[in-house]
Amino acid sequence: MDTAVGFEVSQGELFHDVKSFFESAPPLKDSDRITQKVNEFVYQNSQLSGNAKSIGVVCVTSGGTTVPLEQRCVRYIDNFSSGHRGAASTEYFINCGYAVIFVYRRGSYQPYSRYIPEDSFIDLFEVSNNSEIQVCNSHASVVKKAIKEYHSAVDGRLLLKLPFTTIFEYLQILQVVAPSMSCLGPCGMFYLAAAVSDFYVPWESMAKHKIQSAAGPLDMRLTQVPKMLRMLRLEWAPSAFCVSFKLETDPEILLQKAEAALRKYQMNVVVANELATYKREVVLITNDKNIRIRQQNEVGDVEEQLIKLLVKKHSNYIECFRQDF
Amino acid sequence: MDTAVGFEVSQGELFHDVKSFFESAPPLKDSDRITQKVNEFVYQNSQLSGNAKSIGVVCVTSGGTTVPLEQRCVRYIDNFSSGHRGAASTEYFINCGYAVIFVYRRGSYQPYSRYIPEDSFIDLFEVSNNSEIQVCNSHASVVKKAIKEYHSAVDGRLLLKLPFTTIFEYLQILQVVAPSMSCLGPCGMFYLAAAVSDFYVPWESMAKHKIQSAAGPLDMRLTQVPKMLRMLRLEWAPSAFCVSFKLETDPEILLQKAEAALRKYQMNVVVANELATYKREVVLITNDKNIRIRQQNEVGDVEEQLIKLLVKKHSNYIECFRQDF
Repeated sequence: MDTAVGFEVSQGELFHDVKSFFESAPPLKDSDRITQKVNEFVYQNSQLSGNAKSIGVVCVTSGGTTVPLEQRCVRYIDNFSSGHRGAASTEYFINCGYAVIFVYRRGSYQPYSRYIPEDSFIDLFEVSNNSEIQVCNSHASVVKKAIKEYHSAVDGRLLLKLPFTTIFEYLQILQVVAPSMSCLGPCGMFYLAAAVSDFYVPWESMAKHKIQSAAGPLDMRLTQVPKMLRMLRLEWAPSAFCVSFKLETDPEILLQKAEAALRKYQMNVVVANELATYKREVVLITNDKNIRIRQQNEVGDVEEQLIKLLVKKHSNYIECFRQDF
Repeated sequence: MDTAVGFEVSQGELFHDVKSFFESAPPLKDSDRITQKVNEFVYQNSQLSGNAKSIGVVCVTSGGTTVPLEQRCVRYIDNFSSGHRGAASTEYFINCGYAVIFVYRRGSYQPYSRYIPEDSFIDLFEVSNNSEIQVCNSHASVVKKAIKEYHSAVDGRLLLKLPFTTIFEYLQILQVVAPSMSCLGPCGMFYLAAAVSDFYVPWESMAKHKIQSAAGPLDMRLTQVPKMLRMLRLEWAPSAFCVSFKLETDPEILLQKAEAALRKYQMNVVVANELATYKREVVLITNDKNIRIRQQNEVGDVEEQLIKLLVKKHSNYIECFRQDF
């Protein structure tokens, strides 16, 4: 989600744009079932249930959203994002005692299976002479660890996975999850690492059939997606601890844009990252200071330190919130 | 690849457009290694090697190509295609005795692992009490069969996999594979099931950095991709047996467009399919007649009959070719 420069939309205009966006969107499939699953998961992991296993609930969004260009969709615009950051962060949040609602792009990296080579997991397995499936020696320990930890998270009800593809599905799911988490007050966290489209084609003005490539070039006009970060803060989950991401390819404008986003959307933290170095380095932008985090060695994840720091900031936030009442 | 209506480009113009396309494209990574792998694979599976295990070599292309909108790419246009048809067809070609060069979109369906649920292969495995990895009972037979057949194809050197993401990579790979296969003459086959972009943004006119979402809508102009099917027939592999695909969402125009493509690009077969029914039904368009193929039962693949028929047509083609000399 973007921008911190450019013209400001009034609160009334924002509500109007958000309403039009959702009214024109194709209905979310299985909407009732998703709502029920989210409500149950939040309740089980809230202090209200009396036996919560987690210290808080975080909604991690991960991967890129698509923008369909045709109603019977053949072509769409996509945002580059492997989902690696969201998948890794989910593992570290669970390690720190959180329950995670993992809202992810279909086909993107998944928690606990991100070490397994893309497209070729079948290469990892072989069938032995006595017809048993076994893992090739080179990967056995990694695969075993992944499978164990994954099952422990799922069996402990600390991980709920919700997939999306389009910008419509993504924002409709966020619109379900955020109000459901609002009962957690400051104990709820949003960690919005998904790469969300800034522009879309409203459903009603979209070509019904596949766009024909007759003679000449193709001209397209895309509309801005309403700034849902503002909606999240104003309406859906006003007391939650909110972390958003700002990715730029141009280092010159990165910090300035991240700081503007912090103010404009009243985020608690904005994580600034640059396309060329995002795996090795991020900068945490907060109201009091900026903190640079670098990968400590070749094999370590930058997410390990990032999540530790956010968890600390989140507990301070909960503490301050309680003192205010 | 598209269109059969619209204005015709002369051969001179086509060669010029193709030259500009490749000159402006970012260089293909590992180009030398890919060329070497393809040459070795084609040689091993050609009658020239004296001990070819396959009766022919087919290049199967599969999945959609992306069109980057920025040089340091955050956003891109994509074509919907799961790659299921290409993956399934590859298995049936290998079954029929062919060697397959599988040119596929990263992350799309793969031969022999298409039965395994998307995003959740980790759900299929568990670690037993004695620390062995085992497959959950519900999927054991499917997973074992997949792993066995996959290893048999790879060990028998009947499958070479080459991944792509962008339209640039896809066409650069085709430009390597096609001339390498031309030594096979009529024994080479192209089965072009990939969903290839019709429009692109030339590299040089592309935004260098992430497009900013300042105020207002985004306007874009896209250029037509040169018709590489014509290039394939005219220059790269003139004697090969060529099968292309035509997908439409509007059944009214499907057959007419597929027939026009057959003539215009001098394909041997065009497989016409409609978005709403492509898993259950295809129509083979050929010079003498059109043949409709329907899925025979709920679990069968339409590709099983499709490949059988194409293999038959391909042997007739080879036979005719030999009689002509």
